[in-house]
Amino acid sequence: MTSLTLFTPSGVVAKAAPLRLAAKRLKGFGFDVSVDESALAKHQRFAGDDDLRLAALHRVAAQAPSVALATRGGYGLSRLLDRLDWKKLVHAAEHGTRWVGYSDMTALQLGLLAHGKAESWAGPLAVSDFGGDTLDEVTPDCFVEAMTGALEAVGFRTEDGFDGVEAKGTLWGGNLCVLNSLLGTPHWPKVKGGILFLEDVNEHPYRIERNLLQLHQAGVLDAQKAILLGSFTDFTKSPLDRGYSLKTVVAHLRSLTRTPIVTGLPYGHVATKVCLPVGRKASLAVQGRDAFLGWGTPHDHAHHGHDDTHGPDCGDGCGHVPSNGKRAR
Amino acid sequence: MTSLTLFTPSGVVAKAAPLRLAAKRLKGFGFDVSVDESALAKHQRFAGDDDLRLAALHRVAAQAPSVALATRGGYGLSRLLDRLDWKKLVHAAEHGTRWVGYSDMTALQLGLLAHGKAESWAGPLAVSDFGGDTLDEVTPDCFVEAMTGALEAVGFRTEDGFDGVEAKGTLWGGNLCVLNSLLGTPHWPKVKGGILFLEDVNEHPYRIERNLLQLHQAGVLDAQKAILLGSFTDFTKSPLDRGYSLKTVVAHLRSLTRTPIVTGLPYGHVATKVCLPVGRKASLAVQGRDAFLGWGTPHDHAHHGHDDTHGPDCGDGCGHVPSNGKRAR
Repeated sequence: MTSLTLFTPSGVVAKAAPLRLAAKRLKGFGFDVSVDESALAKHQRFAGDDDLRLAALHRVAAQAPSVALATRGGYGLSRLLDRLDWKKLVHAAEHGTRWVGYSDMTALQLGLLAHGKAESWAGPLAVSDFGGDTLDEVTPDCFVEAMTGALEAVGFRTEDGFDGVEAKGTLWGGNLCVLNSLLGTPHWPKVKGGILFLEDVNEHPYRIERNLLQLHQAGVLDAQKAILLGSFTDFTKSPLDRGYSLKTVVAHLRSLTRTPIVTGLPYGHVATKVCLPVGRKASLAVQGRDAFLGWGTPHDHAHHGHDDTHGPDCGDGCGHVPSNGKRAR
Repeated sequence: MTSLTLFTPSGVVAKAAPLRLAAKRLKGFGFDVSVDESALAKHQRFAGDDDLRLAALHRVAAQAPSVALATRGGYGLSRLLDRLDWKKLVHAAEHGTRWVGYSDMTALQLGLLAHGKAESWAGPLAVSDFGGDTLDEVTPDCFVEAMTGALEAVGFRTEDGFDGVEAKGTLWGGNLCVLNSLLGTPHWPKVKGGILFLEDVNEHPYRIERNLLQLHQAGVLDAQKAILLGSFTDFTKSPLDRGYSLKTVVAHLRSLTRTPIVTGLPYGHVATKVCLPVGRKASLAVQGRDAFLGWGTPHDHAHHGHDDTHGPDCGDGCGHVPSNGKRAR
């Protein structure tokens, strides 16, 4: 059985029941589940004070389970970045530990890349994705496949058609705000020629644009082979917007950089999310509105073909893709 | 008469009446007021599209009034930073134009510092501060004194007592989010040994902390002689905070940097705000809870004394300070 440890690096887990439910479900998925001893600790808005959360991260790294899955995001990793023993976390990653999560976990994942070129997995959070009343139809299967090594690619529908995009490079990214909060610090991974994926929540489009413009002005967007945009959700529109929207943000960014910006990645603060290997070499192919992101055997992915006609709602975002590059749904 | 031009570099001015009222009041203060031709332009959430706002900034720079006062903040300067002819703006500043504003204007002011070591003034915005039903008791007088060269210092009460702080360096800063959005870009002013002032609005303390931590991790806080915190207002607390607050944020930052962090600066998205010369050499003296920030004749400011016992509500934030370093209220 694949060992999986649940830990809480950032925000407090307010109630134990959703964590217990998530653990039970993860056992049902076939994992040998452990819950770190301070996963339910409380200190202000954090899952224990900095020392306790730091100790938890080092403990999980020493234990080196196959899967180290964060329970939830929130805020807290920023406080630990300068104090983490990155060698320990990198060592675990190099010996098979998949550090998994999204949102605040972006700081850990990009730190792993910055400090040791180590891989991790952008994917679900235990309480957020497996601790609620219902389970998403795609997310659990995609997670299990990713954690057992079967997932080699994901396919999705973009919102805008492309006349052929082919890109190869290091896959990296995560939450836009958290990613930008590393700019200028030693925890920023200097990835050139990469495929950068981004998502965010509770941010008005003007704030998303400001963050993307910062990346552009810092030379980051132009240095990538492609930008993949996931979900940007749960913001409140303003009566002053008058036509300003996420669509106009994307259009503006496209006017500034030649790097293709591909929307529709099923990833973010939404129920249906794929798993993505941060730091892995990947290849992207977009033809029309069909996008295909592979990292298993890239030479098989360059020219894929499938006749899926589903819309960009990504309900089948997790491609369950065998190595022939076709989606088996 | 001191010439003053009103212009709108960022967000749209929704209604003309508050701008007209602000212009009328500014005339009443003794300024020779002009309103830029596109100050009321509208494009989406902006005061005209990028080309129009860019043209307005270049037009005001060419006109070179004594005071170039922005009507309001919002969002928009980020889009212009890479396209501005900074030489024109710097040239105007070097020939006497005071670029004034706060919030989004931080991007312009720090850009002036980055591109030409030019001075500008963190201060009010015309519509926001002079276009409403009432006028603040301090802000207009402080603005008039700053614009006519009479203001050489401000005094205020800090929330925490200090056992003597003396610091000299370049005064710089502004809105925290906007300031951080310049990190890693060519528009970031690399100020060492400065006095950095910060404010923000609508940001939960964890986001303020994350931004401050970014500055710390980027080496910015340690490189300053002092940090001055203005107002951080209008955020919504979370039931998960459980004691986490602005106070704990400041305490945490103080545990990380030896640079003194002085709170209580009457500046930010609040009615009572002082004017501060961005880019000017300034000297800070704090004794007990009395803080004194001067930039006129620094040798007079080092040892001041006054028996003011007012609280930190900064109702008398604008010190009206003559050169003997005492507040005339």
